[in-house]
Amino acid sequence: MKKSKNAIPILKKKPLVSVIMGSDSDLHIMQDAVDILKEFGVPVEVTIVSAHRTPKRMMDFATKAHGRGIVVIIAGAGGAAHLPGMVASISPLPVIGVPIKSSNSIDGWDSILSILQMPNGVPVATVALNAAKNAGILAAEIIGCSDLDMRSKIIDYKKKLQLTVEAKAKKMEKSN
Amino acid sequence: MKKSKNAIPILKKKPLVSVIMGSDSDLHIMQDAVDILKEFGVPVEVTIVSAHRTPKRMMDFATKAHGRGIVVIIAGAGGAAHLPGMVASISPLPVIGVPIKSSNSIDGWDSILSILQMPNGVPVATVALNAAKNAGILAAEIIGCSDLDMRSKIIDYKKKLQLTVEAKAKKMEKSN
Amino acid sequence: MKKSKNAIPILKKKPLVSVIMGSDSDLHIMQDAVDILKEFGVPVEVTIVSAHRTPKRMMDFATKAHGRGIVVIIAGAGGAAHLPGMVASISPLPVIGVPIKSSNSIDGWDSILSILQMPNGVPVATVALNAAKNAGILAAEIIGCSDLDMRSKIIDYKKKLQLTVEAKAKKMEKSN
Amino acid sequence: MKKSKNAIPILKKKPLVSVIMGSDSDLHIMQDAVDILKEFGVPVEVTIVSAHRTPKRMMDFATKAHGRGIVVIIAGAGGAAHLPGMVASISPLPVIGVPIKSSNSIDGWDSILSILQMPNGVPVATVALNAAKNAGILAAEIIGCSDLDMRSKIIDYKKKLQLTVEAKAKKMEKSN
Amino acid sequence: MKKSKNAIPILKKKPLVSVIMGSDSDLHIMQDAVDILKEFGVPVEVTIVSAHRTPKRMMDFATKAHGRGIVVIIAGAGGAAHLPGMVASISPLPVIGVPIKSSNSIDGWDSILSILQMPNGVPVATVALNAAKNAGILAAEIIGCSDLDMRSKIIDYKKKLQLTVEAKAKKMEKSN
Amino acid sequence: MKKSKNAIPILKKKPLVSVIMGSDSDLHIMQDAVDILKEFGVPVEVTIVSAHRTPKRMMDFATKAHGRGIVVIIAGAGGAAHLPGMVASISPLPVIGVPIKSSNSIDGWDSILSILQMPNGVPVATVALNAAKNAGILAAEIIGCSDLDMRSKIIDYKKKLQLTVEAKAKKMEKSN
Amino acid sequence: MKKSKNAIPILKKKPLVSVIMGSDSDLHIMQDAVDILKEFGVPVEVTIVSAHRTPKRMMDFATKAHGRGIVVIIAGAGGAAHLPGMVASISPLPVIGVPIKSSNSIDGWDSILSILQMPNGVPVATVALNAAKNAGILAAEIIGCSDLDMRSKIIDYKKKLQLTVEAKAKKMEKSN
Amino acid sequence: MKKSKNAIPILKKKPLVSVIMGSDSDLHIMQDAVDILKEFGVPVEVTIVSAHRTPKRMMDFATKAHGRGIVVIIAGAGGAAHLPGMVASISPLPVIGVPIKSSNSIDGWDSILSILQMPNGVPVATVALNAAKNAGILAAEIIGCSDLDMRSKIIDYKKKLQLTVEAKAKKMEKSN
Repeated sequence: MKKSKNAIPILKKKPLVSVIMGSDSDLHIMQDAVDILKEFGVPVEVTIVSAHRTPKRMMDFATKAHGRGIVVIIAGAGGAAHLPGMVASISPLPVIGVPIKSSNSIDGWDSILSILQMPNGVPVATVALNAAKNAGILAAEIIGCSDLDMRSKIIDYKKKLQLTVEAKAKKMEKSN
Repeated sequence: MKKSKNAIPILKKKPLVSVIMGSDSDLHIMQDAVDILKEFGVPVEVTIVSAHRTPKRMMDFATKAHGRGIVVIIAGAGGAAHLPGMVASISPLPVIGVPIKSSNSIDGWDSILSILQMPNGVPVATVALNAAKNAGILAAEIIGCSDLDMRSKIIDYKKKLQLTVEAKAKKMEKSN
Repeated sequence: MKKSKNAIPILKKKPLVSVIMGSDSDLHIMQDAVDILKEFGVPVEVTIVSAHRTPKRMMDFATKAHGRGIVVIIAGAGGAAHLPGMVASISPLPVIGVPIKSSNSIDGWDSILSILQMPNGVPVATVALNAAKNAGILAAEIIGCSDLDMRSKIIDYKKKLQLTVEAKAKKMEKSN
Repeated sequence: MKKSKNAIPILKKKPLVSVIMGSDSDLHIMQDAVDILKEFGVPVEVTIVSAHRTPKRMMDFATKAHGRGIVVIIAGAGGAAHLPGMVASISPLPVIGVPIKSSNSIDGWDSILSILQMPNGVPVATVALNAAKNAGILAAEIIGCSDLDMRSKIIDYKKKLQLTVEAKAKKMEKSN
Repeated sequence: MKKSKNAIPILKKKPLVSVIMGSDSDLHIMQDAVDILKEFGVPVEVTIVSAHRTPKRMMDFATKAHGRGIVVIIAGAGGAAHLPGMVASISPLPVIGVPIKSSNSIDGWDSILSILQMPNGVPVATVALNAAKNAGILAAEIIGCSDLDMRSKIIDYKKKLQLTVEAKAKKMEKSN
Repeated sequence: MKKSKNAIPILKKKPLVSVIMGSDSDLHIMQDAVDILKEFGVPVEVTIVSAHRTPKRMMDFATKAHGRGIVVIIAGAGGAAHLPGMVASISPLPVIGVPIKSSNSIDGWDSILSILQMPNGVPVATVALNAAKNAGILAAEIIGCSDLDMRSKIIDYKKKLQLTVEAKAKKMEKSN
Repeated sequence: MKKSKNAIPILKKKPLVSVIMGSDSDLHIMQDAVDILKEFGVPVEVTIVSAHRTPKRMMDFATKAHGRGIVVIIAGAGGAAHLPGMVASISPLPVIGVPIKSSNSIDGWDSILSILQMPNGVPVATVALNAAKNAGILAAEIIGCSDLDMRSKIIDYKKKLQLTVEAKAKKMEKSN
Repeated sequence: MKKSKNAIPILKKKPLVSVIMGSDSDLHIMQDAVDILKEFGVPVEVTIVSAHRTPKRMMDFATKAHGRGIVVIIAGAGGAAHLPGMVASISPLPVIGVPIKSSNSIDGWDSILSILQMPNGVPVATVALNAAKNAGILAAEIIGCSDLDMRSKIIDYKKKLQLTVEAKAKKMEKSN
């Protein structure tokens, strides 16, 4: 957007997106966000930040992320998932929440509702259950708001989705 | 972010955020998004785009929005709410979805699930039921990714929230 | 019904029913619709049309289906399932929606609600979760509205259901 | 469709669609189906048939409806709503089910699930909660499968929906 | 209860309880009802009666059951489960409904709600999901209302439950 | 049933059915059970027995009810409704549970599930939410298992339901 | 419990229980906790601590509460309710969570699940929806673990509940 | 807390916490409570007490537990789980309820709601589905209200949680 002198300077090598999760057992889901962001050429960092087991680390992370050049935070958590909302309450960055269907979750409802239903003043951009890949794409779209190259990649990506479906459609039409 | 020559040029006077809704009966909810964006000084447009009653208008809107300088789309809808997802399937912009609890909705579940549970490849940044205000704040945070002024406003806004709560806390402590 | 000169002419060889789905991973469910329609002798076509990945193909399909002689559309989709509703918003044909319980679905609720809860003006004839077979039978019943042969087949089919149950009932009564 | 000699003969004056409901307390919802059908010029009859209080009347109705020239049945019911499914088990006609949110219903879930989740072999074309109007439109679309005049009316109706939304959109754009 | 001359005569050899189900695939659940009733010495019959596939057989069964000496009907069904309610609408006997969690059921909610939420005038005595055993015990308790022997068996059965738990409790206390 | 010498003797004047509830705030619902039973001529008693506030009274009530000549217990409760299940765990009588949608209930789900989902060995005959009237009718049907007079009344009652609906049906057919 | 030299010293005048809530709009619910605690003679403090709007205040509160002599924390919150869980993650005190059904809550489910479903290691003692009174009683019971006076008051309180119900029972029995 | 002469005397060797469950099939879940309490050095007893199969044993247990020196009761149960609430209705001790997702449970909802939604006057401290470990920690926190040693253990435990997460976080940061 505004390219004035107060635009935030960003060094390409430093991570733009931070992918955090409440537990290492969430990595098999959250890796999808990391992978798609790397595919889009977005520098990304990934770590564990637990709202419930490391509250001070969480406070510290959320307070400093934008100062380190991070522009979007992706936070995944299961059960009573407080990580996305708590980070959003502290950081001025857009926070994308990924509800995770963990083992003792009640079909994922607990995770969805405790991420989605944030009070006025503190939004979390929630994506579908386990949809870490979509969280990564959304982060790329957000970066694309001020980066024409990234936006082109998004457009190309959606074009590729379309072509893949059309190829499969032809194949199905023939085989029936 | 990147202030290179391919950064997207934006004229301050033109709307940066487009607030759309499926029906004029949704305006009493969606107005909150418009109001908070104006409070943040974000140029905003507002109109009706119905996925179900004006599908071509919806296609047209979604195809052209980024070309007109829009950087974030906020879409609100109730019931089987297809507007946010369909716009997200066409536009390369981040789309924020606002589930609306309309009259014959099943407690809002239909609207939440049909906005949130998007398939891989097509994310919608979903906020809480009826939380148009949070959609507006999230849009401002996204703009703040590349605009230091906007980010400062977000930081100030969160500070103000804090001060208001602290003042109320003092009052409650005294009266008990 | 009306056999006047403006009745829609239909060549037996051309498909009367179009079975579409959002992804090829839905075929193992949707094949049931194709199979039962072939059993009823209804010419049928089957292909992939994704509302989210091929929105223009979807628009094109929905706009032209009735011109090609299709009289009923069966559309299956999982998660935030917009395909049946979007096709219904464009086509004047009756659209039968099949909610599919896909992998990251929330027990199928997302798919059911985003197909069923359509706004006034744009109905989708929704059948049970994964019930593609019933979608096929319903399509045959609709064709039977103006085709005595088809209606007879429906009556025979229901009779066969009855006889099968009665045979099983006798067997159970004996073995207890 | 087929205009052969075994096409079902229909006299314009006799009702084509039968709108039935479990109780007279459902009429304030079901009247919407009657009204839209009359608007489309479809001859319609309306009465009470209770699966639970008049089971024989229900059997009788369902057995004879197609013989009387009815081509589509619209059945509305609340709570444990068995009327649509039971009629569909007997009649060869397409049955459209309207779940009704009655007073002691559990938010309408009982009615939706007991109409929608029919077993294989006996489909009910379910529409949204309280959506009797959509049931009427769906019935007209079904009639439109073999009646070009009716199909034209459907196309006009959807066009009118579009124009109404576009007019409201313009008004909203101006006032903001 | 009343042992007056109009008390219903019952021959011990003839079945007192009829266990019916919508499909033979329900037998692995419903067998529990048969087994516990035999354990209580209650003469029992078991068969298939499908509301949706054999509506006339269902009408016939429900009309005649009490005339044949049946005093309690146990009906199990899954999905949109209409069998218990429809039988209850016709028969003057107490009908016990067993919701069954069948394959495409939505976690059993459809079956529970379509059996439980009967309208005023037509009760179904609903037991827990898949709880055919409890249906059998309830039938025995109902028979025990006018049969002291049966009541004694119920009292003995509950005593046995108690003793089994107490034995297990002692074992657990020791091993910890 | 069995009219042998061990049949339970019952004096007409003493109550056959006991209607109990957890709180006097439930009376406006439970009165329906009392009224319909009186209409059927069944002697009935009504009182408050709270599982949570008077556990000993509950134990005492459940232990002695059948000794006093009660043959059926109807128990209504809201929220975490333990009264029906606890009484059923102690008494050999059939217990009918009425889930009540009380003020802080979660749409009645809490009451329904804590009454319905009883473990093997301890059934509760659950009726619909707030359906105290149906609980009364079910109690009458149970009494009718061994009392021909009562069964006749049930048959007459169902006949009356049918005639009422048929009269309303005629009226509706005329006015349309 | 242990009255050894390391028992925590408590001055009667200082608050033992801290009642906190996310917003002053929750006070009409949370006041019930304060009132019952005062009735039990427990010194209590009440204030606003918002996890989302005053995260640092929340951290500070939770870190210092036990040092100030607080022994139990009662935290009420609505929607995506993170306050009880976040305080529990920091404080070594037992934290009682009160889910509140706020205006845009989804029937209270969001609040219940985001308080109840805490991960291993960080329990929250959750009470019923809006049940601040029960939170107060639970706090008193916890204090009663090491204070015989308080335990006597609990026993008296439960006795009083019993007597009230028994009095109402007598009244109801007479009037019927 | 109060170390006055009426403080409750407790012998270290006697159990302070009683872990009870409705069935031995619940032990694989409830063992987690026993294990963590032993880890904290809390003397614990474990046994089966079934509200539905041994109501008198349950009454007896609840009446006498505090007299035997028990200070906290942990009760686990599945389905229509009445054990925690019934014990809480009789005992003056804090009762912690553990909802258990048993085999025929409806995704655990029945157990959660029948434990959580207790009426005013009778709280149960409910923890997450299957979260027996958290029940044990909560019991330790309650004991820590008057025992500085125990509180120190809680603080150490939470510190250990934090260190484990931080170690895992470092490992994840390196491997990406």
